Amino acid sequence: MPISFAPPGDKAALEEGLAFTPKFDRDGLINVVAVGAAHGEVLMVAHMNAQSLARTLETGEAWYWSRSRQALWRKGETSGQLQRVVEMRTDCDQDALVIRVEVGGDGGCCHTGRHSCFYRVVAATDGSSVRLAADA
Amino acid sequence: MPISFAPPGDKAALEEGLAFTPKFDRDGLINVVAVGAAHGEVLMVAHMNAQSLARTLETGEAWYWSRSRQALWRKGETSGQLQRVVEMRTDCDQDALVIRVEVGGDGGCCHTGRHSCFYRVVAATDGSSVRLAADA
Repeated sequence: MPISFAPPGDKAALEEGLAFTPKFDRDGLINVVAVGAAHGEVLMVAHMNAQSLARTLETGEAWYWSRSRQALWRKGETSGQLQRVVEMRTDCDQDALVIRVEVGGDGGCCHTGRHSCFYRVVAATDGSSVRLAADA
Repeated sequence: MPISFAPPGDKAALEEGLAFTPKFDRDGLINVVAVGAAHGEVLMVAHMNAQSLARTLETGEAWYWSRSRQALWRKGETSGQLQRVVEMRTDCDQDALVIRVEVGGDGGCCHTGRHSCFYRVVAATDGSSVRLAADA
């Protein structure tokens, strides 16, 4: 039977219940944080819609929704950097997900070639503007 | 001089530049992932607007934007669970932030009393529906 998601219940059900009723936003999306399974470092932040979330649960591989392409996005399909989901968690109000992933291919995640998308630190203010510092 | 944010530049500037030009969504918000400074575990996912982001950078404490209350939200103001920001990172397209925080008070984060908001694992499908499992 294909996976489907019931609409969110009341506050008590959302916070303390054991039914997974993800709260999609008005675009039908939920925030997803992918962390590396080995060390727990944050790799990327992306979105899923109900279809990609169901497919992720069915296949054990991360499928996102690409907002720029408005299309289902099997992460790593072209790069080989597939993400095998070893754990998925949801938060108190079920409007965000954290997935722990084992990354295929060369183990990278970011389309720029870095291991993680978060390769720059917000470093210092310079007058009224703010500078970034890249990882070595 | 108060901190302000220039509008995002082109793809190259966003991805490889060292100017921090956060990309706010159509509600003026950016996704923020708070992780514990000591172990890097994901504590919560929330949002900042330009004002709360500037205040976070100015004070070194996490200020969010509460979508439910439509108000600036100094995290921990009533609970004592203030978040001291020891590092802020942005991602390739500068539309998400990760902050490493040291938590004050009893060290918790979630309004339900848990250490982290992600206290439930998306566990198993039961027919077409999906069940959660709570941490012990």
